[in-house]
Amino acid sequence: MVDGQYTVRAIGRVESPLHTRSQAPKQGDEGGPNAWLVFDPAVARGLRELAAGQEVLLLTWLDRADRTVLAVHPRGDLARAETGVFATRSPDRPNPIGFHRVTVLAVDGLRILVSDLEAVDGTPILDLKPVLPGRAER
Amino acid sequence: MVDGQYTVRAIGRVESPLHTRSQAPKQGDEGGPNAWLVFDPAVARGLRELAAGQEVLLLTWLDRADRTVLAVHPRGDLARAETGVFATRSPDRPNPIGFHRVTVLAVDGLRILVSDLEAVDGTPILDLKPVLPGRAER
Repeated sequence: MVDGQYTVRAIGRVESPLHTRSQAPKQGDEGGPNAWLVFDPAVARGLRELAAGQEVLLLTWLDRADRTVLAVHPRGDLARAETGVFATRSPDRPNPIGFHRVTVLAVDGLRILVSDLEAVDGTPILDLKPVLPGRAER
Repeated sequence: MVDGQYTVRAIGRVESPLHTRSQAPKQGDEGGPNAWLVFDPAVARGLRELAAGQEVLLLTWLDRADRTVLAVHPRGDLARAETGVFATRSPDRPNPIGFHRVTVLAVDGLRILVSDLEAVDGTPILDLKPVLPGRAER
């Protein structure tokens, strides 16, 4: 039934002052630094209508993740009971796709500056989608 | 630079009354039917702490998508100018990962009933993450 395998291909990479997972704040209230999204020229047409001020959903590939993990102590706190990964934002999970809601601060050709991105330098980018207006999220 | 390729593996599939893309409402105000997420037994541990009432982010693989598309007429309306896919929610895009914010209505072992899901029957599931409290989305 669930034997499907599919190939995803990086369309860009994150350029960030964050260089290690220990530096990257766990998702929550801490926030992260501004960072550049640097895209492959092959996808340039896809970026053309992006503009400063837009809120977007960024999907990344968390390439340092352990894909065998199904349960974690939330936020790495051993005092908290192990929790199934689909009820957490643990980067370690079967398909380590990162999800980040950010704001576009500037567009410079293939380079897009975004706010508050919790992803380490070099993280592959898989997709970008707009936040749909009028809904709490989407 | 952006030559990375990665394999994603379905961890479940959508069971929905929607059977074709033409039946599936375009994302926006229309909403969709309730649907079941049916998971592979191999990931059961990951699901254990999911419960009715939780809001979650579902990531799917839009396996009917055209991955060569970089620009579309939004909502299929030829009267609207072609727009780069990263500024739309077109399912046709280089990495056709669907993003759906849904509410868990019921949990029955490997089967999870969710509200308002705009995905066709058989759509592969890649991931599930909680909506983080206190933020407009995440």
